[in-house]
Amino acid sequence: MLKLFFAPGSCSLAPHIALEEVGADYEAVFVDFRSREHQKPEYLAINPKGRVPALVTDQGIVTEVPAILAYVGAAFPGLAFTPLDDPFALAKVSSLNAYISSTLHVAHAHRFRGHRWADDKDAIAEMSRKAPEVVASAFQMIEDELFTGPWATGGSYTIADPYLYTVATWMEFDSVDLAKVPKLVEFRERMNERPAVQRALVMQET
Amino acid sequence: MLKLFFAPGSCSLAPHIALEEVGADYEAVFVDFRSREHQKPEYLAINPKGRVPALVTDQGIVTEVPAILAYVGAAFPGLAFTPLDDPFALAKVSSLNAYISSTLHVAHAHRFRGHRWADDKDAIAEMSRKAPEVVASAFQMIEDELFTGPWATGGSYTIADPYLYTVATWMEFDSVDLAKVPKLVEFRERMNERPAVQRALVMQET
Repeated sequence: MLKLFFAPGSCSLAPHIALEEVGADYEAVFVDFRSREHQKPEYLAINPKGRVPALVTDQGIVTEVPAILAYVGAAFPGLAFTPLDDPFALAKVSSLNAYISSTLHVAHAHRFRGHRWADDKDAIAEMSRKAPEVVASAFQMIEDELFTGPWATGGSYTIADPYLYTVATWMEFDSVDLAKVPKLVEFRERMNERPAVQRALVMQET
Repeated sequence: MLKLFFAPGSCSLAPHIALEEVGADYEAVFVDFRSREHQKPEYLAINPKGRVPALVTDQGIVTEVPAILAYVGAAFPGLAFTPLDDPFALAKVSSLNAYISSTLHVAHAHRFRGHRWADDKDAIAEMSRKAPEVVASAFQMIEDELFTGPWATGGSYTIADPYLYTVATWMEFDSVDLAKVPKLVEFRERMNERPAVQRALVMQET
């Protein structure tokens, strides 16, 4: 059986929603960041990066959100959630997920995890100060250029949607001016109506 | 015909190698960073992010290295370069490419592009100072945990290989101690023997 390691408030919500969408038989395992479980040997044996999410499968462990999403969509092909039959559609989905992962989430991480890239406390404070501006700029890029609608990359609901939704739930926290991203606000509301999203959110209330 | 926008020394080498590997009919277009071509309206109309690479296809434009690689492998399926028929293999390839994109390349960018995440010059200098340590740690994670061998994710040559190779060519520049990453050094040598790699490198000598 699949096993998803998650922490509430993190990007692990994205694969959690995906597993609910495809109706997978899986177990969700809470990793407690407050007691630093993600840095203990038991968890590092599962994910040596010490991060969530991680998905345990019969064939091995998958880490990184875009990869877990690609796996879930490919392993449960009925929904064409990962559009394997259309190279350009696959590229659009992969492109948005890569942008979220390597630009938007990275910008968000500079708010409270600046220690990854600097030791000096003033430098870390400066990154934290600028983070909302950088995050807002990434959301604006998605709003203005990358988001297609009604779903993230167009008419089909794909693995890009749970990921975009997950980071979009951070917008207030990151002080994004919601008036500047109306399409994303509407998208978030549309996602909130999906039973799979509601179930994943409830399961993450620990 | 496909058109790849590239800049020498950047991650655009990865899709360039991939296009050579599959024997694609394409044009490679040099984007001159020194004259800031990547920030001019002509290029921003192609890629509003103002970055390379970008791949122009008959159906539209694809940006982000993991996405362009996924596209090339899926559009030229003969080599199983993007392993569409095996969800776990697809996940492994996607996972390494996501790690390179969102962790390793991001660490590398803190060396000279700290202005993306801070305005203060001392903070930018501090990120630059720490960058080699962060980059080395990401390469060590790949060496110790993620690299399978003989190719990046195992016995098959996939879209993860040109990307891992591309960032591995930065190791000396990023002051990585090569003695600590013998598998990556050997992998780089193996890649250097491939005609497609050699052709892409020659084409990028502008």
